[in-house]
Amino acid sequence: MVDKDKRVGVIGGMGPDATVDFMARVIAATPAEEDQHHVRMIVEHDPRIPNRQAAMRGEGEDPGAAIAVLAKRLEAAGAEFLVMPCNLAHAWQSDIEASVRIPFVSIVEESVQAAIGRSGEDSAVGLMTTPGCFAAGLYQQALAAAGRPVITQTADELAATMALVLRIKAGDRSEAVAAGLRAQADRLIARGAKLLIAACTEFPLVLNESMFDVAFVSSTDVLARKTVALALGNEQISDTL
Amino acid sequence: MVDKDKRVGVIGGMGPDATVDFMARVIAATPAEEDQHHVRMIVEHDPRIPNRQAAMRGEGEDPGAAIAVLAKRLEAAGAEFLVMPCNLAHAWQSDIEASVRIPFVSIVEESVQAAIGRSGEDSAVGLMTTPGCFAAGLYQQALAAAGRPVITQTADELAATMALVLRIKAGDRSEAVAAGLRAQADRLIARGAKLLIAACTEFPLVLNESMFDVAFVSSTDVLARKTVALALGNEQISDTL
Repeated sequence: MVDKDKRVGVIGGMGPDATVDFMARVIAATPAEEDQHHVRMIVEHDPRIPNRQAAMRGEGEDPGAAIAVLAKRLEAAGAEFLVMPCNLAHAWQSDIEASVRIPFVSIVEESVQAAIGRSGEDSAVGLMTTPGCFAAGLYQQALAAAGRPVITQTADELAATMALVLRIKAGDRSEAVAAGLRAQADRLIARGAKLLIAACTEFPLVLNESMFDVAFVSSTDVLARKTVALALGNEQISDTL
Repeated sequence: MVDKDKRVGVIGGMGPDATVDFMARVIAATPAEEDQHHVRMIVEHDPRIPNRQAAMRGEGEDPGAAIAVLAKRLEAAGAEFLVMPCNLAHAWQSDIEASVRIPFVSIVEESVQAAIGRSGEDSAVGLMTTPGCFAAGLYQQALAAAGRPVITQTADELAATMALVLRIKAGDRSEAVAAGLRAQADRLIARGAKLLIAACTEFPLVLNESMFDVAFVSSTDVLARKTVALALGNEQISDTL
């Protein structure tokens, strides 16, 4: 068999369930009837990467070096492009790009493009995220560059969201956790958000678009569809998810 | 952080969903409250490995060389032991072991040990599998070595099972598929099986132990628990699944 597909390298484990969810969405987004139609992935699943939230608070070890090591290993193993299904970890994107020659596909850039494509020009985007990802400013900068108004969470809302994310990371995918996150999303909608960006790959473990009256852009889904499109040499992202 | 855990290399993609299911079960079987407690995995997820069922029929390319390449890459990337969440692919275990120096943990050996531990000495084991895995004789040999009577599927039953596995591989996890596989399992029970070994990692995508009156040994679960025990340096396999 001549393989024209590209092998994707996945910088994973941040967190573990989010990486598995990403892989499942890549598989689901692939037009395939048998094993051999699917995308080849090399996954460095390293949950031991130093805590990113702590690092953004100036505590603990900086994770940039450890993340760059995974990127280098993936390149050495034959990955042709890299993705990382963790939004906050993109604060260390420059460490990755300084370490490898293969392209790195940003979940932030792709999610912002997807959000812009799914809403009117002046529609305010609600940014639902974690304290670390908010502090890093990744989405705010990308949305500002696109000229899009953004509605952000308060410090209290970010803290409440983080508490729920920690419960998901501890294995709790209960209705109570989902309801708590929906309540946080509803606050952004009440303040005028016409579309939500789920800028944390833990959110889609308990939330999905059917729960909302506005568009809900799952950064995990966006990255999964982009990954399939790039791996199969079809830039157009499938809308089948 | 001093990491005393071992990094596991996963020879994956056979099939894609089964690999993701295996990873999810590793995560679920790990005693963890936060990311950093989880097992580090390197996953070579290569669904393009030549078809194993066809190879057992003497058709198409032999997958042994391609599987061995993945094993070598995983060793080079730093994996300290290898697992492969596909039963039939163990027919090429000797290709793996000839290619690497790190240990390879057999899903067949572990599942047979688990089955023996869960049933009385003379209890007949029902072997539920695919035509290729049946033809390879892996489980029959391991059960014979353990002195265990085994009840196997007929050629027609194996063919019916394979048709359902192909539906799972095409993304169909419907109740109809689950019911079809349950009916195949019930035939083994009707012929005297006191315990079932699910010797295909596609089965647990639609079946679980609660569906049966007899013990149902999921080879995926057994390998996941063994992986956690080995990675965390605790040989005793958790029974929390």
